[in-house]
Amino acid sequence: MSAAGPQGGGDRDRIGVEDLPLREDLRGRSPYGAPQLDVPVALNTNENPYAPSPELAAALARNVEQTAAGLNRYPDRDATRLRAALADYLGHGLDPGRVWAANGSNEVLQQILQAFGGPGRTALGFEPSYSMHPVISRVTCTDWVPVDRTGTDFGLDAGAAVDAVHRHRPDVVFLTSPNNPTGASLPLETVAAVAAAAPGMVVVDEAYAEFRREGTPSALTLLAEHPRLIVSRTMSKAFALAGARVGYLAAHPAVVDALQLVRLPYHLSAITQVVAATALEFADELLGQVKQLRQERDSLVEWLRGHGFAVAASDANFVLFGDFADRSAVWRGMLERGVLVREVGPPHTLRVTVGTPEEMSAFRTALLEVTAR
Amino acid sequence: MSAAGPQGGGDRDRIGVEDLPLREDLRGRSPYGAPQLDVPVALNTNENPYAPSPELAAALARNVEQTAAGLNRYPDRDATRLRAALADYLGHGLDPGRVWAANGSNEVLQQILQAFGGPGRTALGFEPSYSMHPVISRVTCTDWVPVDRTGTDFGLDAGAAVDAVHRHRPDVVFLTSPNNPTGASLPLETVAAVAAAAPGMVVVDEAYAEFRREGTPSALTLLAEHPRLIVSRTMSKAFALAGARVGYLAAHPAVVDALQLVRLPYHLSAITQVVAATALEFADELLGQVKQLRQERDSLVEWLRGHGFAVAASDANFVLFGDFADRSAVWRGMLERGVLVREVGPPHTLRVTVGTPEEMSAFRTALLEVTAR
Repeated sequence: MSAAGPQGGGDRDRIGVEDLPLREDLRGRSPYGAPQLDVPVALNTNENPYAPSPELAAALARNVEQTAAGLNRYPDRDATRLRAALADYLGHGLDPGRVWAANGSNEVLQQILQAFGGPGRTALGFEPSYSMHPVISRVTCTDWVPVDRTGTDFGLDAGAAVDAVHRHRPDVVFLTSPNNPTGASLPLETVAAVAAAAPGMVVVDEAYAEFRREGTPSALTLLAEHPRLIVSRTMSKAFALAGARVGYLAAHPAVVDALQLVRLPYHLSAITQVVAATALEFADELLGQVKQLRQERDSLVEWLRGHGFAVAASDANFVLFGDFADRSAVWRGMLERGVLVREVGPPHTLRVTVGTPEEMSAFRTALLEVTAR
Repeated sequence: MSAAGPQGGGDRDRIGVEDLPLREDLRGRSPYGAPQLDVPVALNTNENPYAPSPELAAALARNVEQTAAGLNRYPDRDATRLRAALADYLGHGLDPGRVWAANGSNEVLQQILQAFGGPGRTALGFEPSYSMHPVISRVTCTDWVPVDRTGTDFGLDAGAAVDAVHRHRPDVVFLTSPNNPTGASLPLETVAAVAAAAPGMVVVDEAYAEFRREGTPSALTLLAEHPRLIVSRTMSKAFALAGARVGYLAAHPAVVDALQLVRLPYHLSAITQVVAATALEFADELLGQVKQLRQERDSLVEWLRGHGFAVAASDANFVLFGDFADRSAVWRGMLERGVLVREVGPPHTLRVTVGTPEEMSAFRTALLEVTAR
């Protein structure tokens, strides 16, 4: 602490994070986030490769200009119009009182943990899974309980999941479906069994829901029966709006009420609200591209398997593949060829986002070169 | 807890927040926020009455349309361009590495408490002050230590402030200058003395800095000497952008590094970044209106004093006034006349935001009627 004391300009530039009175459990940590590198083919963060259409961009500009005329005023704290539009989009008999939105699903998850986690409480997740779940748990001082996925293709059957819940009695359970970075959805019976067994809240992170294979149900169908079940979604992926930061959830109205106790007032800007609502009006256009991406994903899985790679089944806009004795070498080799994938998940795998046909062609060429197949 | 168990549709609609496994210290709490009422003259949330100009609105639309073309990609996680523009605006030799931005100064303050507060730690503030400080402390599980302001006009002299710091040894101290809801700035020697005495971080909340009376220095002038000092600001007030949710801070680069450990990745949307950067290009126009508001504020203070009201000195875009035996009755009487003020602060006072000359005229008429002066 002495180095952090008040002192003249000479010494102060040598002061680092370690000299500040940081929370003990954050010491020595690194900030979360994939490298933001400028490469020709970026397939590392599961972005949608299709930019908003000029028509959508023009509609956004028009609506932002209109909203700008009132920007001196605070936004609608309850984001009523946006929540109504999201409820309409989700269907399943949802209404605005059962929907909540925030700045990305990360903020949605943070609010859930602020309300239902915290000191002395635990959140449980089945790993490998979305690495932000433990990160946000730590930030909210919730103890993280990791449980290994042991099923084929990193699946999770109802029995194993319920056993873990009985063993650990977590305050919050995270189920990720489709799972990131492995790709497959959870069977609905696993979600239902966990919802029935869990003593606390159950969060089904459905960030990639729109990319599911035909006939795979969403946990939205279970909400009516489970008041402590929460389904979180995002507009980053299917709606191609990663840059706009809009996440949302569906749950019992009491859950939405609970989140009001921890949300920062006016957390969602008037601009974000109108941008999201405008994009929802273009749902048909945007979801048409999702269909293309699903086809591209299925072709990619087939191609990888055809070339002898191990591939996990995918309901998402990415594919986990391997096995590599030295995945870092493959990752670097791909990067040298202008293709950025993600070094994530189990030790011998890489994750590739499904891009445009041109990007996937570049990916295939690079991968064959790097692995000499 | 039994009522929150899984069950059929019949019972579930009777479930309320109290049936959910909410964090114990949140039970029985109400959501924070002033009523969002639709009234002719809204002078309750310290908004800037001057809407962005049509030129600024058009520039925002243009830049948003351009940004929309890349919205499928995640935003610049480090908001580099915006932080450079904010550093330029603040001056004082600041650079992007000493500036950080988030969704409103509330999120800035939350990140500070997530990094430097937390379980077993304390945050101290001098009350009455901005009521979000204790609220955000609670959300981040930081114990709140309130200390009364005992000076004239709710001032705070260096000796009293340092005594409180020595007595409580807080991990984070909040100084609000200009103070909300009372109005006056802190003497710079008070800030300097607290910064020298505090064992942890010192946050000077300067949300209303641009409205200070002539010759009142900012705590920015002290940053070079105090690596644990943080000055937070917002674009909500002087920049008339409450709807856009942009808060920021200036501090030692190590502080900015520390916040990277708790910020949600990509917390600030590409749209928010470009909206804020665009507004900064219109700083001259916007700050011209601040000057008008300061003059209007000074006239209001004089007028109130001339009519026998007690008025605290103000460096902000609001004025705290009284004394009322029954302030709720005055508040309601004003509302009945279409003028919404805020029932906040000490028991016998109301707070009024400085609006346009027309709004202030409506305020004066209503106040004279309600108080029969």
